[in-house]
Amino acid sequence: MIAAADAVTRLSTALGGSPAAKLAASALIEAEALGLPRFGIAMLDELTADAAPVPADEGPQAIRWLDCSSCFAPLAVATATLDLTGAAQQFGIAAVFLRGIRGFGRLAPFVRHLADAGLVGLAGAEGPPFVAPHGGTQPVIGTNPLAIAMGQGTERVVIDVASSSATMADIRTARATGTPLLDGTALDGEGRPTRIAAEVAALLPRGGQIGSLLGLVVELMAGVASGGRGDPKGRGVFILAFDPAAAGERIDWQAKLAGLKNDWTAGGGHWPRGGGLPVEAALDAEFAQRLDAHLTRMTAQGGR
Amino acid sequence: MIAAADAVTRLSTALGGSPAAKLAASALIEAEALGLPRFGIAMLDELTADAAPVPADEGPQAIRWLDCSSCFAPLAVATATLDLTGAAQQFGIAAVFLRGIRGFGRLAPFVRHLADAGLVGLAGAEGPPFVAPHGGTQPVIGTNPLAIAMGQGTERVVIDVASSSATMADIRTARATGTPLLDGTALDGEGRPTRIAAEVAALLPRGGQIGSLLGLVVELMAGVASGGRGDPKGRGVFILAFDPAAAGERIDWQAKLAGLKNDWTAGGGHWPRGGGLPVEAALDAEFAQRLDAHLTRMTAQGGR
Repeated sequence: MIAAADAVTRLSTALGGSPAAKLAASALIEAEALGLPRFGIAMLDELTADAAPVPADEGPQAIRWLDCSSCFAPLAVATATLDLTGAAQQFGIAAVFLRGIRGFGRLAPFVRHLADAGLVGLAGAEGPPFVAPHGGTQPVIGTNPLAIAMGQGTERVVIDVASSSATMADIRTARATGTPLLDGTALDGEGRPTRIAAEVAALLPRGGQIGSLLGLVVELMAGVASGGRGDPKGRGVFILAFDPAAAGERIDWQAKLAGLKNDWTAGGGHWPRGGGLPVEAALDAEFAQRLDAHLTRMTAQGGR
Repeated sequence: MIAAADAVTRLSTALGGSPAAKLAASALIEAEALGLPRFGIAMLDELTADAAPVPADEGPQAIRWLDCSSCFAPLAVATATLDLTGAAQQFGIAAVFLRGIRGFGRLAPFVRHLADAGLVGLAGAEGPPFVAPHGGTQPVIGTNPLAIAMGQGTERVVIDVASSSATMADIRTARATGTPLLDGTALDGEGRPTRIAAEVAALLPRGGQIGSLLGLVVELMAGVASGGRGDPKGRGVFILAFDPAAAGERIDWQAKLAGLKNDWTAGGGHWPRGGGLPVEAALDAEFAQRLDAHLTRMTAQGGR
């Protein structure tokens, strides 16, 4: 057993101890604590000794494009998120478009950081073609999650939703365990529905046409506008933030958010919180071993 | 019969002849040409002689909030869109949050205007509670469409998708004609599924959980961040635009967009164009009579 907070500290230190290192480390550890190791410290496999530093911010800019293909992706996304926080507070609204991003985990911790700073955070990530358009049979876009976060404390909302009916991690798990897929999840190489993970050639959009259109929205923002679509060095990501405090006293968005949460739950809805790491969370010995192995390797590489 | 272009000119002149009047008029006439009269010139019923002018832009601002409760909604949305165009070109990214907006028609023509200007346009609108959360039984949010537009010419994409399984206009039409609703569209006052339009107390989200989450995203942006949620004077709307040209030559987003369109259609998908008004479109005599009646009433009110 290892306390999640200790794991974050150790990993953050190994990543250089900067605020970005802390955010990246907490994002990866959180995924482990949520039982999502595919989005966790496995990302450290991509960390090589020659990873470039994240492109420096030449002072806050309202809109930026960054080629991160030589960077360690979780650190690149964390650094961009931190820079974006300052830019959105200065300009009222700001966005950053990343390309060449390899595995970085989940979007939720990054938009939640923006919410912690009093901003509304919106982000999306595209990736290699695994998902067919609604009505189609060939994979064209990635599982393309969209995330938003807003508010603090008990009212906070964090949505992080894939636009496909399953993730690639789900398919790998089903393949490894031999579990049949749910109906409507995937197609085989002939474009026919399949429930056999080993036969999957394309995933289907979640909820039919609306998931397909949401995936396309994310592809336009994170893949086309970022310039990242089709880049063999990694995926495209966008992160956008705006400051509702720029409206002044007039809108009272915190009260509106609290009211929406009450209405949503009273109407029978689930208020999404997008994970999060309880202070007292602990991880098991298997995780501790994996973390030790990564830290040992990182030290051997000369640290960062 | 009346040529759609003539109808736009006549309505635009009656609305004052400004660029915003032209955009508003073309949006309403386009809905008529698409066979969507519920989003067409019926909006003019809300136009009263004492409608206030749209709040003036005090020079371009990256982020603005506007109370439009005393304005004619289609003109307010058009004016905000035109002002946003300049702001996004100046700052790289900009957004406007409107509240107190009554019926204004469809989002597609407004985001398409942003695409015409070389920008990426994103917009959403919330409204009175008609749609239940996924898994719930009480209406909490509106039909909450999300729209995006990008590109020009044959590559252009315009998405305008409601997050509910039907619109209120669909329910009114089904009620008027006695047509049964599709399964999974609506609930009655007891929270039970119903196919009888007259019994509908809540619509269901489109595609289940993903439509519910998309509707919530729109509610957060257009209802909470705008300050418009729950305002009896009208709905909340957000419009956001950014300028991919701010990236310089590096990203070649037009080529990425053309490639995505090719991949999407080759993969069996439908490339959404969000309507649009062919130059040669014509409207029938019934429409011409309705338009004449509105124009006569507007002239009697002293014009604008």
